[in-house]
Amino acid sequence: MVSVDRLPSWNDGPIKRAIVEFVEGSATEGGPEVVAPADRIAAFDNDGTLWVEQPMPPQAPFLLDKLAAQVQADPALAEVEPYRSIIQRDPEFLGGLARQEPDAVLMFLSGIGAAFEGMTPEAYDAEVRDFVDRYRDERFGKRCTELVYRPMLELFDLLRAYDWRVYVCSGGGRDFMRTIAEETWGILQENVIGSAPEWSYRDGQLVRDNELRGDLALGPGKPSHLFARTGRLPKFAAGNGDVDIEMLDVADFALVIVHDDADREYATNAGAERILDAAASKGWQLVSMQDDWNHIFVQGAPS
Amino acid sequence: MVSVDRLPSWNDGPIKRAIVEFVEGSATEGGPEVVAPADRIAAFDNDGTLWVEQPMPPQAPFLLDKLAAQVQADPALAEVEPYRSIIQRDPEFLGGLARQEPDAVLMFLSGIGAAFEGMTPEAYDAEVRDFVDRYRDERFGKRCTELVYRPMLELFDLLRAYDWRVYVCSGGGRDFMRTIAEETWGILQENVIGSAPEWSYRDGQLVRDNELRGDLALGPGKPSHLFARTGRLPKFAAGNGDVDIEMLDVADFALVIVHDDADREYATNAGAERILDAAASKGWQLVSMQDDWNHIFVQGAPS
Repeated sequence: MVSVDRLPSWNDGPIKRAIVEFVEGSATEGGPEVVAPADRIAAFDNDGTLWVEQPMPPQAPFLLDKLAAQVQADPALAEVEPYRSIIQRDPEFLGGLARQEPDAVLMFLSGIGAAFEGMTPEAYDAEVRDFVDRYRDERFGKRCTELVYRPMLELFDLLRAYDWRVYVCSGGGRDFMRTIAEETWGILQENVIGSAPEWSYRDGQLVRDNELRGDLALGPGKPSHLFARTGRLPKFAAGNGDVDIEMLDVADFALVIVHDDADREYATNAGAERILDAAASKGWQLVSMQDDWNHIFVQGAPS
Repeated sequence: MVSVDRLPSWNDGPIKRAIVEFVEGSATEGGPEVVAPADRIAAFDNDGTLWVEQPMPPQAPFLLDKLAAQVQADPALAEVEPYRSIIQRDPEFLGGLARQEPDAVLMFLSGIGAAFEGMTPEAYDAEVRDFVDRYRDERFGKRCTELVYRPMLELFDLLRAYDWRVYVCSGGGRDFMRTIAEETWGILQENVIGSAPEWSYRDGQLVRDNELRGDLALGPGKPSHLFARTGRLPKFAAGNGDVDIEMLDVADFALVIVHDDADREYATNAGAERILDAAASKGWQLVSMQDDWNHIFVQGAPS
């Protein structure tokens, strides 16, 4: 073990030891497990890996509110998808969204593309910040940024201490995450990868486009987004859902966060059935929130 | 002046002083010109800004060779664009390519998309490395990586010493540049932005797509690519051609490299007519290669 424990929220045990050994070994020059400095890229999913994604990822109420406001302004939209399914709280659509199924996500994006089209980055940023400041999680009564997992931020610190570059790669909205990345994760916006409509530069101003360019950063879209951004594939990866399988599969060291703590967080395998099978067959590290973490959230008393 | 001269290839004078004052001021806490650390993004064009782009950017012979080899393998291609114009050395097409005119670049890309489709990153990388090792510039008899401007690498070092993050943002091929970025510029591949067909992740392997996703990183595509990558616009920018105007326009400090040294490099304003006008009206710094640089290339005796 290291003399300084950089992972105090992690209980001693095989998972913590495996993480520390891999990260220390990666920086041990001449050692068998050394990773060249330029190759030290670590990639983390966000929803369910860095913060609570039950009953829905925090970006969902932000977007649902936005679309509801659009319908209020233009009631005819209530008959058009995706507004219709949203207004009617269609369980099939909302379930697909919660499971990050590409069809549901794409239909949803067609609505949000229109909702945000033509905005400046400053206006978009202000709307997200207002939401994050205002919104409280129903169960915990906290801001989404207070429901970030403290053990994962400690893991960021450990990796950075050994000159790893930490990237977040999520199917969620890149620009939504960027708004909170620096204060909440201590990660520069440029290390946040996600699904994203782009911004056009017109008349001296960036304005948001309607359409998504490129793939969603889900499933095989995670390695391709990471490669597009960095020119490399990550050597370290962490995720929790089936849409993270490909990202973990390209890494040398893979962590799967298992939501098995109904008291302190949630106990559910929904959307994680395949990744748990994959972890067993590929020898990925299964992190039990119940057993491996002595503290869950970044804010509040030890939980 | 600073006690350590980090720009020895730059002659003392107003340009060097302005650069050093801006960079030092950016990191002077509480000073009037301080730039927040997270905002310290510097963006550099490549062709004509970091290395010789006359008579054509070095990527052009790489691609022309590749397409010629395709035609040799399949002579029917000689009747199809862009192969036809390339084989016939059509001056209008080649001139448009040299000036990085979007129409010519896009037609060219339609050919190279097909030429590289389905390749792995490793195979693509090997082809570029083979070209860079083999190809000699006709006038200087040197590799393209030896024709990088030493003063600009010193400027990278100066910026990094003050915690700036240096990005290259070029209309040229992102993945071509990434191959040489780390050894030649000392910049991580992830800090290289350019025009790029993407890579799909299929069956456990990245393979190159045919189509370009998103805009070319030319003109208004430079700020939009920089924002997509970093979530910010650069505070410092350097370029030399009309396609760099928008990138320089968003920065607080802008350098224009003026090719006015026929003896040691080239003296030409081709493709830079508008940026020289813009520089005059906007107060951008004009770097005279003849007057401001006492040494041009990274390799070889002082020139």
